Amino acid sequence: MSSQQPIRYKYFSREMTPPPPHLLSATEAASQLRAGTLSSEELVAACLRRIREREPELCAFSFFAPEQLLAAARAADAERSAGNAIGPLHGIPVGIKDIFDTAGMPTENGSALHAGRVPSTDASVVARLRAAGALIAGKTVTTEFAFFGPGKTRNPHDPRRTPGGSSSGSAAAVAAHMLPLAIGSQTNGSTIRPAAFCGVLGFKPTRGMISRAGMLRLSPTLDHVGCFARSIDDLALLGELLGGSDERDAGAWSGARAPLCEIAASDPPRPPRFAFIATPHWPRADSATHSAWAALRQRLGTQLEEVELPSSALDAWRCHQTIMEAEMAFQLDREWRTGAAQMTTVLRQQIERGRQVSAFDYQAALARIKPLYSWFAKLLERDYDAIATPATLGAAPRGLESTGDPAFCTPWTLCGMPAICLPLLATPEQLPLGVQLVAARRADGPLLRTARWLERTLASE
Amino acid sequence: MSSQQPIRYKYFSREMTPPPPHLLSATEAASQLRAGTLSSEELVAACLRRIREREPELCAFSFFAPEQLLAAARAADAERSAGNAIGPLHGIPVGIKDIFDTAGMPTENGSALHAGRVPSTDASVVARLRAAGALIAGKTVTTEFAFFGPGKTRNPHDPRRTPGGSSSGSAAAVAAHMLPLAIGSQTNGSTIRPAAFCGVLGFKPTRGMISRAGMLRLSPTLDHVGCFARSIDDLALLGELLGGSDERDAGAWSGARAPLCEIAASDPPRPPRFAFIATPHWPRADSATHSAWAALRQRLGTQLEEVELPSSALDAWRCHQTIMEAEMAFQLDREWRTGAAQMTTVLRQQIERGRQVSAFDYQAALARIKPLYSWFAKLLERDYDAIATPATLGAAPRGLESTGDPAFCTPWTLCGMPAICLPLLATPEQLPLGVQLVAARRADGPLLRTARWLERTLASE
Repeated sequence: MSSQQPIRYKYFSREMTPPPPHLLSATEAASQLRAGTLSSEELVAACLRRIREREPELCAFSFFAPEQLLAAARAADAERSAGNAIGPLHGIPVGIKDIFDTAGMPTENGSALHAGRVPSTDASVVARLRAAGALIAGKTVTTEFAFFGPGKTRNPHDPRRTPGGSSSGSAAAVAAHMLPLAIGSQTNGSTIRPAAFCGVLGFKPTRGMISRAGMLRLSPTLDHVGCFARSIDDLALLGELLGGSDERDAGAWSGARAPLCEIAASDPPRPPRFAFIATPHWPRADSATHSAWAALRQRLGTQLEEVELPSSALDAWRCHQTIMEAEMAFQLDREWRTGAAQMTTVLRQQIERGRQVSAFDYQAALARIKPLYSWFAKLLERDYDAIATPATLGAAPRGLESTGDPAFCTPWTLCGMPAICLPLLATPEQLPLGVQLVAARRADGPLLRTARWLERTLASE
Repeated sequence: MSSQQPIRYKYFSREMTPPPPHLLSATEAASQLRAGTLSSEELVAACLRRIREREPELCAFSFFAPEQLLAAARAADAERSAGNAIGPLHGIPVGIKDIFDTAGMPTENGSALHAGRVPSTDASVVARLRAAGALIAGKTVTTEFAFFGPGKTRNPHDPRRTPGGSSSGSAAAVAAHMLPLAIGSQTNGSTIRPAAFCGVLGFKPTRGMISRAGMLRLSPTLDHVGCFARSIDDLALLGELLGGSDERDAGAWSGARAPLCEIAASDPPRPPRFAFIATPHWPRADSATHSAWAALRQRLGTQLEEVELPSSALDAWRCHQTIMEAEMAFQLDREWRTGAAQMTTVLRQQIERGRQVSAFDYQAALARIKPLYSWFAKLLERDYDAIATPATLGAAPRGLESTGDPAFCTPWTLCGMPAICLPLLATPEQLPLGVQLVAARRADGPLLRTARWLERTLASE
């Protein structure tokens, strides 16, 4: 090993044996529930204790009804006793970012403009979680309309720091062991960035793998569902349960679900090879990130090679911005027309810029996705199992007025490629830094398999 | 019958028995080729004789190589003799609108800007025709970039009149019995309108049924492939052979081809019911159209009901215009930047308007398609087998400076619904008038079946 700073971030250490239920991964908890060594009520009660301890400081939830959740857990236990456990997540509580509709539960999209909004229909993701037996534990804080205006959530590692956004509450709730699983979204870096800042696993599957029906629309081209968990098994399980075709989302794939759990659990056919892409934003990354990546690159040796983006790919960030501005202006038009004064300046300006975008520039930006992705696809097909980049420019910034910079997420989100954030690195002060791995479209299973390889390899030291 | 003008247009009368080969439909010719009572060389020779007679006046072709075509026919006959007939169109000549790439054959898109352009790859439609054994007979005249700037083609019924556009040469060639089949396209009314003006059958299948790979792109949202023939059997055969998934066109359906021939040949399960939609353009239709439709409506009695468009559907024309302007400006940008001076004023102004469209208005127009189609789909599902409207405002206008008005085609093209033009009506001077039937998306087979019912019913008098 190098003489540099220790690169491992020791995430989710569990000195207690056996660990209390709130420290279990969803997969572990589900196994104990099936074995009868744990009840859903015990699991939920442990989470509720943790929430009582941590929530006053962290503010991860926008809606939370503990009695209702406990009652649902007891009902799940009763169903299981009667032989009626309905799916792999039976009795497991899951947090839902407050941009996904939940029937009968508030869904306010992080804006006073939607205060008191209670949908009558579940988002497809929520319906699929319920069908798998999951308990909808509550709604987690989102930034304003899943854009940059911060919510009330704080970083579990340091409450003076941002948890990142826009899926702030989901990342914080899972990182702080308040819940084993949470759902988020990503239009630029809204899953990967808060996962990195909070030191938790974040997974943004390939565009179209998970239906967005019933989720706030910011940008139909760029919006993705994201998943938060504390183990790769859990991400594979969530992805597999939530994936598949959906008539309610024209952007969702047709066809069957990918067998993510099986692929993620298998061994890679050969030692994985990584393409380190620094991107033009690398000079802006902080010194802790530079040090941690120097150590990681030394550790991976010839398995990691630096690959330069071709100059033709440097417009990815501008194209993303054009599409996101134009589409947000259209999607949030009603809100802007009726409530611009109740919007943050950053959102209002984004919408107003978006109203100025021409159809010509918008089409030109959309047309760039295909050749950009083609370059990434060829690179991956030829030589590499994953692109490796930092998840963020550094650890969570101090202050709650900004949720940080998504620059390291933009090209893959634009291209709809699957990305995962692994909290494997750390600053000298033990603040988490995320390793982002990115694969070709629809290679979600192999991406999880590669991520597991990296996690195990670094853990074995 | 009413006392009004005779409504039947006597199309394709064939007094000679047996008819000479150039009067045969493709299905009839294919049957004779299989039976050995006709050779491809005889068929092509008959078409060539007809072309020599009619082409000097009609100018339907932009590229035509008779010796090459005859050689191909002889080669097809030799293959058949050797037991190697490769498909249902083996040895049948087909005309190709000059916006579809033909490997080694000029494809000039009706513009001096593309003069001398010879592609190296076939459009998917052309490749599928060749795979079915068809002979690529030549390239037919298109308007300038398949927009309104007229080509040189004249109407077979009256050379002082327009053949319609943009698929001018394809419609004229089939109507004048120069070829049994031709391929065209439609972005607004470019198949249905020239079919009506020339008195031939035109079929624009559901959006996505036929791949547009290798076809000039005007508007990815609105562009469709169209087919011209002199029998419904032929349209069903063409549609079935050309349909199906294609990796080269992201807008093409996935999945298997529809069994159009089988459905088109079957009897309707009940007497079809038609919804006559006059549209706001009805008052602009000429008196011959009004008379012919009065007689047709009387003839169909209670099988035809008038249905009014809801006021919410009246923006269909404006939405179509916004999308087409915006997309043409982007698709023809290089041509405009390098050769605006060589464009007609009507095209240049369209592109220049398109450059002014905002991304907001463009998205708003695109978003209208879903609710508009939803209204049509519900109407058809509930009560009717097809919408019936005039194909055009009247018979082909005099003069060659305009290709006529597509107003009666716009809403269905916008919504991607299948449409067919049947030359069943006529003016008092026996100029053809088209009946347009429109069905729900993917109901191409039932639409052809309904069209056959109408054709037979009116012929039985």
